[in-house]
Amino acid sequence: MNYHQLVGHIREKRSFLCIGLDTDITRIPAHLLGFNDPVFEFNRRIIDATHDLCVAYKPNTAFYESRGFEGWLSLEKTVQHIPDNVFKLADAKRGDIGNTSRMYARGFYDQMGFDAVTLSPYMGSDSVLPYFQHAGKWVVILALTSNDGAADLQYLNTGKRQLFEEVLSQAAGWGNMDNTMFVVGATKAEMLEKVRKIIPDHFLLVPGIGAQGGSLAEVAKYGLNDNCGLLVKSSRGIIYADNGEDFAEAARSAALEIQREMKEILDKADI
Amino acid sequence: MNYHQLVGHIREKRSFLCIGLDTDITRIPAHLLGFNDPVFEFNRRIIDATHDLCVAYKPNTAFYESRGFEGWLSLEKTVQHIPDNVFKLADAKRGDIGNTSRMYARGFYDQMGFDAVTLSPYMGSDSVLPYFQHAGKWVVILALTSNDGAADLQYLNTGKRQLFEEVLSQAAGWGNMDNTMFVVGATKAEMLEKVRKIIPDHFLLVPGIGAQGGSLAEVAKYGLNDNCGLLVKSSRGIIYADNGEDFAEAARSAALEIQREMKEILDKADI
Repeated sequence: MNYHQLVGHIREKRSFLCIGLDTDITRIPAHLLGFNDPVFEFNRRIIDATHDLCVAYKPNTAFYESRGFEGWLSLEKTVQHIPDNVFKLADAKRGDIGNTSRMYARGFYDQMGFDAVTLSPYMGSDSVLPYFQHAGKWVVILALTSNDGAADLQYLNTGKRQLFEEVLSQAAGWGNMDNTMFVVGATKAEMLEKVRKIIPDHFLLVPGIGAQGGSLAEVAKYGLNDNCGLLVKSSRGIIYADNGEDFAEAARSAALEIQREMKEILDKADI
Repeated sequence: MNYHQLVGHIREKRSFLCIGLDTDITRIPAHLLGFNDPVFEFNRRIIDATHDLCVAYKPNTAFYESRGFEGWLSLEKTVQHIPDNVFKLADAKRGDIGNTSRMYARGFYDQMGFDAVTLSPYMGSDSVLPYFQHAGKWVVILALTSNDGAADLQYLNTGKRQLFEEVLSQAAGWGNMDNTMFVVGATKAEMLEKVRKIIPDHFLLVPGIGAQGGSLAEVAKYGLNDNCGLLVKSSRGIIYADNGEDFAEAARSAALEIQREMKEILDKADI
């Protein structure tokens, strides 16, 4: 999915919601446990109930890997089930040397069919560049994360600016706004203002709405650009909205509530 | 495997060799392709031929993930085949928020049986701490990598020191020398001197011998401590030493050559 297609889906669906499929087999409704692949059954119903309200799904690979090859199989089936008009983002936070990055790119893009993968910037440009060999695919680079530990390194002063700003500035030049997004945590929405000064046009993936704190209105205030430029993630607040037989309907209600707020924001900004 | 057991294996085997199992299905001998799981067959024979010469195996997960759940299955079988007296290191370069780190830890340690996993430090202390809940297990934190892009961020000046030194200094305090190692690239062996000033006692995982350049003698000169304190990795130079029917014997010869050099180094240092 390219930049213009993504923006088109946002305008059409009146949503910039990214639903995190962080599916923990110990937290899904009991009536699904009799299925051959309970995690996939859970995801399938969540996707069927919410795909018109969101523009992206983001499975975090840890939740699948922790179950070994069976979990990996659940992940593959989940990605295949996501409709073509929804952005498929592997939250994998990879990052390795060139020939290894080529392997990861092949795995996530070609083998599994993801549109994008999250990457750590620590190993530098040559750990990211191989991903750009895949036309129409994206990298989503960690810049400012929403956990407490973000302060340990990301806030360090590197001379002219803090490390996360250095990452934004350097990595914006590794690719372009058609193949690169950045993770920018929303715990301090005003930091989005600093971010937008460095990268006004790029898409930002914003975690931290819901369970991780953060307000959608604040994020939009500081982060929105002319083409929206935001994917805002909610995970547990949607997929675990209810633990009974009606979990998928409850997930839809939770997603709908956020989508309505996003519609207002988009309407007001004339997007 | 704890610190003293690892040091014991090094002393006994006269080796601090870590063999990288970066097994690319397009590079393994043709006669293995008829097997149900050619990658596992390749790894099994490499392990059988070399396990007395090395103290660690390090599969890079990218090479397995790129083949989807079948690759993940090859990885699981490979780990199970590694004898108990060899350190099992998942080169996964993960790094995520707390609850996700717990999932990764569960996957790599409990589900798959690895002793250690490589982590990126970018997200800070709380992305690493959950791994320490698993007694006898290790994290191996990226500090200074051997790729060109390492210079982009790792060399940045953060005031008193460079970013990789800041990582070493901070992360040494997150855990201790019984549960934490650091990746330190060997392309400039004299940088190991700076590293040893900050962390004299920790184990270092040193890539960059062989295909990535770097001399074993130089690494030992600057990096060795009283308990050896080094795991030096070779991958392609060993596992792809020959592409014919005798590939495992060729791998053994290549490993033996390095082990003999390591024996000399250990003997000379009275370890």
